[in-house]
Amino acid sequence: MTAQRSGVDRIGADQAPKILDIPIGLEASGTRRETDSMGAVDVPADRYWGAQTQRSLIHFSIGDDRMPKAVYHAYGYVKKAAAIVNGRAGRLPAWKAELIEKVADEVIAGRLDDHFPLYVWQTGSGTQSNMNTNEVISNRAIQLVGGELGSKSPIHPNDHVNMGQSSNDTFPTAMHIAAVEAVRDRLLPSVQALLQAIEAKSAQWHDVVKIGRTHLEDAVPLTVGQEWSGYAHQLRQAVDRVTGSADGLRELAAGGTAVGTGLNAPPGFAEQVAAEIAAATGYPFTTAENKFAAQGGLDAMTGASAGLRALAVPLMKIANDIRWLASGPRCGLGELVLPANEPGSSIMPGKVNPTQCEAMVMVCIQVLSEDTAIAFAGSQGNFELNAMRPVIINNFLHAATILADACSKLRQYCIEGTRLDRDRIDGYVDRSLMLVTALSPVIGYDKASAIAHQAAAEGTTLREAALASGHVGAEEFDRIVDPAAMVGSARRHG
Amino acid sequence: MTAQRSGVDRIGADQAPKILDIPIGLEASGTRRETDSMGAVDVPADRYWGAQTQRSLIHFSIGDDRMPKAVYHAYGYVKKAAAIVNGRAGRLPAWKAELIEKVADEVIAGRLDDHFPLYVWQTGSGTQSNMNTNEVISNRAIQLVGGELGSKSPIHPNDHVNMGQSSNDTFPTAMHIAAVEAVRDRLLPSVQALLQAIEAKSAQWHDVVKIGRTHLEDAVPLTVGQEWSGYAHQLRQAVDRVTGSADGLRELAAGGTAVGTGLNAPPGFAEQVAAEIAAATGYPFTTAENKFAAQGGLDAMTGASAGLRALAVPLMKIANDIRWLASGPRCGLGELVLPANEPGSSIMPGKVNPTQCEAMVMVCIQVLSEDTAIAFAGSQGNFELNAMRPVIINNFLHAATILADACSKLRQYCIEGTRLDRDRIDGYVDRSLMLVTALSPVIGYDKASAIAHQAAAEGTTLREAALASGHVGAEEFDRIVDPAAMVGSARRHG
Amino acid sequence: MTAQRSGVDRIGADQAPKILDIPIGLEASGTRRETDSMGAVDVPADRYWGAQTQRSLIHFSIGDDRMPKAVYHAYGYVKKAAAIVNGRAGRLPAWKAELIEKVADEVIAGRLDDHFPLYVWQTGSGTQSNMNTNEVISNRAIQLVGGELGSKSPIHPNDHVNMGQSSNDTFPTAMHIAAVEAVRDRLLPSVQALLQAIEAKSAQWHDVVKIGRTHLEDAVPLTVGQEWSGYAHQLRQAVDRVTGSADGLRELAAGGTAVGTGLNAPPGFAEQVAAEIAAATGYPFTTAENKFAAQGGLDAMTGASAGLRALAVPLMKIANDIRWLASGPRCGLGELVLPANEPGSSIMPGKVNPTQCEAMVMVCIQVLSEDTAIAFAGSQGNFELNAMRPVIINNFLHAATILADACSKLRQYCIEGTRLDRDRIDGYVDRSLMLVTALSPVIGYDKASAIAHQAAAEGTTLREAALASGHVGAEEFDRIVDPAAMVGSARRHG
Amino acid sequence: MTAQRSGVDRIGADQAPKILDIPIGLEASGTRRETDSMGAVDVPADRYWGAQTQRSLIHFSIGDDRMPKAVYHAYGYVKKAAAIVNGRAGRLPAWKAELIEKVADEVIAGRLDDHFPLYVWQTGSGTQSNMNTNEVISNRAIQLVGGELGSKSPIHPNDHVNMGQSSNDTFPTAMHIAAVEAVRDRLLPSVQALLQAIEAKSAQWHDVVKIGRTHLEDAVPLTVGQEWSGYAHQLRQAVDRVTGSADGLRELAAGGTAVGTGLNAPPGFAEQVAAEIAAATGYPFTTAENKFAAQGGLDAMTGASAGLRALAVPLMKIANDIRWLASGPRCGLGELVLPANEPGSSIMPGKVNPTQCEAMVMVCIQVLSEDTAIAFAGSQGNFELNAMRPVIINNFLHAATILADACSKLRQYCIEGTRLDRDRIDGYVDRSLMLVTALSPVIGYDKASAIAHQAAAEGTTLREAALASGHVGAEEFDRIVDPAAMVGSARRHG
Repeated sequence: MTAQRSGVDRIGADQAPKILDIPIGLEASGTRRETDSMGAVDVPADRYWGAQTQRSLIHFSIGDDRMPKAVYHAYGYVKKAAAIVNGRAGRLPAWKAELIEKVADEVIAGRLDDHFPLYVWQTGSGTQSNMNTNEVISNRAIQLVGGELGSKSPIHPNDHVNMGQSSNDTFPTAMHIAAVEAVRDRLLPSVQALLQAIEAKSAQWHDVVKIGRTHLEDAVPLTVGQEWSGYAHQLRQAVDRVTGSADGLRELAAGGTAVGTGLNAPPGFAEQVAAEIAAATGYPFTTAENKFAAQGGLDAMTGASAGLRALAVPLMKIANDIRWLASGPRCGLGELVLPANEPGSSIMPGKVNPTQCEAMVMVCIQVLSEDTAIAFAGSQGNFELNAMRPVIINNFLHAATILADACSKLRQYCIEGTRLDRDRIDGYVDRSLMLVTALSPVIGYDKASAIAHQAAAEGTTLREAALASGHVGAEEFDRIVDPAAMVGSARRHG
Repeated sequence: MTAQRSGVDRIGADQAPKILDIPIGLEASGTRRETDSMGAVDVPADRYWGAQTQRSLIHFSIGDDRMPKAVYHAYGYVKKAAAIVNGRAGRLPAWKAELIEKVADEVIAGRLDDHFPLYVWQTGSGTQSNMNTNEVISNRAIQLVGGELGSKSPIHPNDHVNMGQSSNDTFPTAMHIAAVEAVRDRLLPSVQALLQAIEAKSAQWHDVVKIGRTHLEDAVPLTVGQEWSGYAHQLRQAVDRVTGSADGLRELAAGGTAVGTGLNAPPGFAEQVAAEIAAATGYPFTTAENKFAAQGGLDAMTGASAGLRALAVPLMKIANDIRWLASGPRCGLGELVLPANEPGSSIMPGKVNPTQCEAMVMVCIQVLSEDTAIAFAGSQGNFELNAMRPVIINNFLHAATILADACSKLRQYCIEGTRLDRDRIDGYVDRSLMLVTALSPVIGYDKASAIAHQAAAEGTTLREAALASGHVGAEEFDRIVDPAAMVGSARRHG
Repeated sequence: MTAQRSGVDRIGADQAPKILDIPIGLEASGTRRETDSMGAVDVPADRYWGAQTQRSLIHFSIGDDRMPKAVYHAYGYVKKAAAIVNGRAGRLPAWKAELIEKVADEVIAGRLDDHFPLYVWQTGSGTQSNMNTNEVISNRAIQLVGGELGSKSPIHPNDHVNMGQSSNDTFPTAMHIAAVEAVRDRLLPSVQALLQAIEAKSAQWHDVVKIGRTHLEDAVPLTVGQEWSGYAHQLRQAVDRVTGSADGLRELAAGGTAVGTGLNAPPGFAEQVAAEIAAATGYPFTTAENKFAAQGGLDAMTGASAGLRALAVPLMKIANDIRWLASGPRCGLGELVLPANEPGSSIMPGKVNPTQCEAMVMVCIQVLSEDTAIAFAGSQGNFELNAMRPVIINNFLHAATILADACSKLRQYCIEGTRLDRDRIDGYVDRSLMLVTALSPVIGYDKASAIAHQAAAEGTTLREAALASGHVGAEEFDRIVDPAAMVGSARRHG
Repeated sequence: MTAQRSGVDRIGADQAPKILDIPIGLEASGTRRETDSMGAVDVPADRYWGAQTQRSLIHFSIGDDRMPKAVYHAYGYVKKAAAIVNGRAGRLPAWKAELIEKVADEVIAGRLDDHFPLYVWQTGSGTQSNMNTNEVISNRAIQLVGGELGSKSPIHPNDHVNMGQSSNDTFPTAMHIAAVEAVRDRLLPSVQALLQAIEAKSAQWHDVVKIGRTHLEDAVPLTVGQEWSGYAHQLRQAVDRVTGSADGLRELAAGGTAVGTGLNAPPGFAEQVAAEIAAATGYPFTTAENKFAAQGGLDAMTGASAGLRALAVPLMKIANDIRWLASGPRCGLGELVLPANEPGSSIMPGKVNPTQCEAMVMVCIQVLSEDTAIAFAGSQGNFELNAMRPVIINNFLHAATILADACSKLRQYCIEGTRLDRDRIDGYVDRSLMLVTALSPVIGYDKASAIAHQAAAEGTTLREAALASGHVGAEEFDRIVDPAAMVGSARRHG
């Protein structure tokens, strides 16, 4: 192979240049000429990106949705891992590998965020964001060795930064990394904290007997602690579902290259890249068992989104319960007293509203609809590529983020400061007719039913109606119809 | 306790009547008078149901959606288990327990299906279907001991059949049982068979090199076997997701009774009922850890529905791929030849269409929308009850059923008879320009790109353009640009 | 043209056979041999359908969803109209046209329903249901002239019954007709009746002052009549949306034949068929302006489905409001008393639940999800055909039906019997602090706010706190803070 | 009324201060103390907002979704209109009204955008954004008359800027204004331009005969112009649906105040405010007929969202058609040649992809899911308020924006530069077997079918098979089977 023929390793492996200590940034104004296989394009002189990024910026300025920065940070891991593996195998000179790694670390740390301007609505493979990453790493690396920006030498965006890779395998790899980090680092801690706050309330109120409600109608009693233990348990199980569904994200497509066959990537590349990414992120990533599935479909993302939905569904129920139980102050249920964080009305003085709960309900609706978008997009793949990747990762990261933050706010500004109105709670228990249920095993459903109807019709207490019925005596009534005895072992669901 | 007070065990435990050998059915016409706590209602004389069922029939004749029979079969297991546990504990005389068990077995076997007429759109707790079950078991049991229908004696629908139970805990229990059985007995076998058929095709075609397509555009080659291995792997992972998500259904609410506290159910009842149901169904059901969560939410159902969706998403992709690859016969892609099952057009003679794929795509859209309904409904619980149960179980069972059947039909009438058009497949590989990718590591991306553009512009073969470029020689080109060598180890993704 | 060449009019136009007076039905058992272009198939001897129907039955037995009968009734109109137009133009002998018309009338009347067994999940064009119609009409016509079933003579399913037609243009035509009739004849009357019942309640309670609630929290008063006038107005506007969105269904694709060009249909055919259908149905159907749009897309159906959704959205709000306002009886809001239609609980004696509202909420969730399915399917057309027709029409007709029936039941078994609990309603008004709003324009928002907070903190009445503040005197307070004066002109929103 | 009592007009109407010529902006650093009814809060000294805005910023920093600026611009119209009406009636001193108007104009023009920082996820009524507007206008007005920021004097955020208003009526008013402007000023022009570009292509290609495809399978021919006339017509009808559905937005809630009764707003206020808004925006806004419906529901928004969906559904079909028709270049359908805007692959040199179509498909999926969110949220109102407003308006404006921009990009970078590959198109027509359909009326469906099957089986041309069948002669075949004659009047669907 002659040097003339090879565009890849033209600059010898032995000529390692000195890496300069140049801070991030380009002190230039106006534009710089960059090129790609279609020709030349002017780019802003103070930006690292190249021709393909600029073309995308022009052709896809749709709305103001930008590809989440988390995708680029994740891509940093991919480029770093590939450089390590390529360098180790000698396909890439060691100094080139190290140079790419160094810049990839800057990408991972978010220090090059200003150089990733692309929109969500772009090519469905994410190629333009991959090339944005390649171009920025190329030019930043060139800067660090004193080269000429846009020259693609000594670090070429395709031949070196993208070596052994395609967007088709690396973009879903970056999606998985970004999704895992969003769930692990942002969502789960926030949900866990909310869960603990709810558990604390459940423990605090474990023996406060209250009326139960089914169909919104008065039912038999339980304790406030039991009710909140249900909330806690729903969240606990949702956390399991999030964790379980995110497990599918462990499998990375990297190494499949263009269509899953691994063309232009050497044997072992996939496994080694996954291992490097696992090491760098501290998450047990592994190479996907079948790359055709991993690139033609995005089923792990759809599955992970179902995990987010598994959180939104009970969170919506919990938020709704809380705002209903706190409704009033005088014409609602009024069992809970929520913190008054802000004036509630521009016209009604003194009004306080359950705004954290409302924000949570809206967030849950948003997450449910974003999950729908992900599933729809997930179904629209063709052949060797699902070209709906940007819409999927954008919705996923958005959903994870707003869920995380909404959980934090709900905990901090609502749950933790929630108090009970014991008078209300006790009053309801005293008045309810459904305590008659405890008589049912003794006198039968039909007689118990007649007593309840009688009390309702005449507006009497249950006790009065029961004694008047002749089916039960006072002593027996008082022994059986004891709310505190009707809640079972209040702590057993702690 | 005096007999006068007790409606429950008035008829002594010791007076076990003889169980008659009466076949199912009521030889009567006209109506029979039945009663409940609200009074008397006339019911058809040839039906076992009672007053509450009849009220529901009148008040809820909405559309023609009936509560799936599978829910009643599942309820049969619940009633049987409760009778066993109550009988064993002496709360129910042994003969009563056995009588209920006997009739419950008839319910399980579907032999009383004609007596469960209720609509899906009824009370959100499913109480009316529970009472339908209670009433039918009561009257059938009464018939078996020569009693008077509607007398509720010696087997009372509430006091005996429903002993220790509420609709609030038993309906979700029945939902879980019905859902598990639909997945285990109908869906998974059908998907597994489809998966095996696809795997067989993948193996059969493992070394047929074909052109890959990304963005619908020509890409580098892979084998047909690899492409189908991707389909197989997507389905295999979906099966895992279905199985994993159905795991949440193992937890049963039975024993929580009205609001989760277990009022009127003795200690241990929940665990024992779950154990009996597990034994009867052969599935490792267990009692729900937290009954407040299990009755206030239906998160396990939402989770299981995500499993169905995890199947629909790749099935839609696979069905679309197949119909596109079979498009033509002369003006489409034409790589696959599907079985001609029926004439395709009422106006165009000789037309054959990919109808199995279309049916599957429509089924997948339906399943995705039913999953949306389930998640929405799952979010709408309040306090101690999610009163959206019927809409959830109906959508779940429907989705599982049409997915199962569509997989069977697709397998039988499409996949198994699919053949390759080798001439087409080979021709595409010969013509494609994207084989240039293999040159990229040798001559660099930019030069390779120029060659491809040149060939496209001039309508030449890739080989002609490559040699004309001077970047590669004929011998080298032929060695590197070898489609068969570009597909990697075709079997490694088997 | 020689007789030998023409399969279409082999049996002369002049040889009109006598039409016999044979009732519907085939007295035969076992099977009958039928043929189509792919060969022979055995069909049940007592059914009119032919080979293609039978093939579909075998290949598409998916679940138990059958193509709605309403589609066939609508197809009856199409076949009748085509026969009239073809006969009038002399393309079809007059007696053949009349014979087809006669049988089409039987189809329209539902008298041949038992002969339309096909599943929803079939070919995406609906061809199989079109051929089912063609085959049944052919054989019934043959029966009526004493011919041989399956002979296709003298009435051929394709050449005569389908003359000038394709499934591609006639199935969407039948969809529009069926959808229009479902909306016009079943849905709108039911909604109108509900609207009137709500208007009657609004009028009845026009001057009952109650507390308003925003964010579930106490707000300023309005009258019950005003609140219900809002429900009525939402429904009235929804009716307008249903009507407006159904307007797009007026345009019929018939005449576009296979791909929209009208091949094999003579000039004027489209317009004349639409006119005949309009005359027969009494609805101003017209021919679609652009047949390529009408067959490649199903946008009018998606639009009409948005009309159904426009009903479901306010109905869900109204049903939720009513069940909340009726919550209790002693531990909820308790402003409304709903009819007690049935016992509410299998375990809690005397419980009554807002079951009609729950059924309505579930129906609305179902309709919303079916609308989602329709929009998704509507987006999945390709080239000259949207092959998602069966899933669209099935969801539409189902949604229209359950909405219609749920409105009827809600009206009959809930709205009409709803009463007010005046003591509750009055008590809330008396206690509410938000009446302070009326003071705001006089003393300013800030001082009014302080008064409300003071009353809340100290548990006093608003009047006590206001007088204690010194910002307002007793006489002025009583004049300004008058609930009855705060509701505006209660009747102006009648 | 004594001065002591009145917080509203304490500073006399006659003391009109001079309005200073102070540019927008606060030259200050650190924080400023602001107050509301709950006490004091520190806000950034260089911002106009007050205590309630600051509280919301703290409590609701959820994700990075900010209330769209368009909502504030719309609120500018509301505040201006209210000031005009209040000033005209003498409820507000003329100079105060003029001062508010002046600042409202700055809001409308977007000049105060930096002072509206709130998140989407806030109180469900939008109160915090209303108060943000009130506070900013108050402080900016105070600045303009040399007052003390935060003093609320002489312009009080509630008493003056919010006079006669509540968030409950003004936020939906602002929603309607913002939605109308987004549709009218951004979406419709963009869609119209796309429609015209498609119409131009349709006209340009009106007589290019091509093969039709149904079920993805070869069908009878049509012209390219006809196919594109279908696209144009779908868009034209969608524009009608957008326009029609936006019509419901004309009705404004302003004047209903807190619960729809108009408390604290004088008679005629609603009508006059709507008239002023209509005048200022040039859109025929009018006051809502029923304020309870307008505030308790948001049905007009749900309806308008259905309009956006009505665009997304056909746009998805059109974008899919175009990318499929352009698939290749050598292994796809290849009828269309799209502009090559950018390199398509990071690994495959020379690859060009249909990226604009992919972006459009993703946008459509997003819009469909946002429509789902809107409908869901629209169903979740309670009593006198639907507290899901922010999620609804945010999704609506986002959907309208990305649809608008995606239409512009698709037109500019795809449609306008699309060319035909005439050789491909002609070749398909020559090869297709479905031209046999034209023979069907002459020789009958069954014989025509046999000819097509014969040609397919033997790989011959249709002509060869037809002549071999003996059913048709050469001269007759050539006369009847003429593609150009089979497309009808190509221009009639122009």
